[in-house]
Amino acid sequence: MRVLVIIGCPEPPVLVPSTIYLLNMLKNRGCEVILSANPAALKLLETADPERYYLKGVGFQDIEMGLKNRLEVDAIVGFAHNDAAVNYIISYKSVYDAKTYAIVFGREVKKEYIEDLEEEGITTYSARAFHNPIPIVAKLKEMLREMIFK
Amino acid sequence: MRVLVIIGCPEPPVLVPSTIYLLNMLKNRGCEVILSANPAALKLLETADPERYYLKGVGFQDIEMGLKNRLEVDAIVGFAHNDAAVNYIISYKSVYDAKTYAIVFGREVKKEYIEDLEEEGITTYSARAFHNPIPIVAKLKEMLREMIFK
Repeated sequence: MRVLVIIGCPEPPVLVPSTIYLLNMLKNRGCEVILSANPAALKLLETADPERYYLKGVGFQDIEMGLKNRLEVDAIVGFAHNDAAVNYIISYKSVYDAKTYAIVFGREVKKEYIEDLEEEGITTYSARAFHNPIPIVAKLKEMLREMIFK
Repeated sequence: MRVLVIIGCPEPPVLVPSTIYLLNMLKNRGCEVILSANPAALKLLETADPERYYLKGVGFQDIEMGLKNRLEVDAIVGFAHNDAAVNYIISYKSVYDAKTYAIVFGREVKKEYIEDLEEEGITTYSARAFHNPIPIVAKLKEMLREMIFK
């Protein structure tokens, strides 16, 4: 199974750790992973994994370029904590035409993000989380069960 | 060489990736590492390293408890991006009585942090960094050369 993960601006401290957690879960389940990342987020991921234990084998593309360079993927997962991220997830779903999941998170969970995403047929999970990754980790596990076993 | 690393509130996105980068450099140079961390920072580190490639062998203590539980260490390194972190670094230096280094960072580098730390005999490096870890990584490398080879 080929999964595309989208991460935008790394403002929330939970974003980079949660992304590594997700990559690790996907790789452990035998998925091929491609990451569409904002350049600052990519540098943070590389700093957080200097020996490339988690990044090894993961494909990368710039979040903007990825919209012009459609790949075949089975599923898309996006982290949504601001307007730009919500828009990227919706755009990727429309360009890639694959089953899409979003984790809406932040200090507060914005209902309009959930509504906008669900209106586009995107399966949405939400977690109030900014410093504490545990609520996001729980939702990522739930999402993976749904993605892989259904 | 036994090094104590202090990290406080993980507000800046660069903090957790930079901490993993530092732990990895210290371990690769044969140092024994103890981490004094705020509980949210510790959960983020664990999420960012689910297989414990980087955290394996690292000792942990709560940042507050560590001040009551003095260990023998050869050097202390602290990340300073707010008042609380500056105060922790100064307190640890006084309790542990070891050579102490601080990385002052943030969207802006606050001169008063550098002055307060240097007044206490703490060797200080500074980097303007919030999303982009590269300036901090450069300073960490410089600090390690000074710590290990001088």
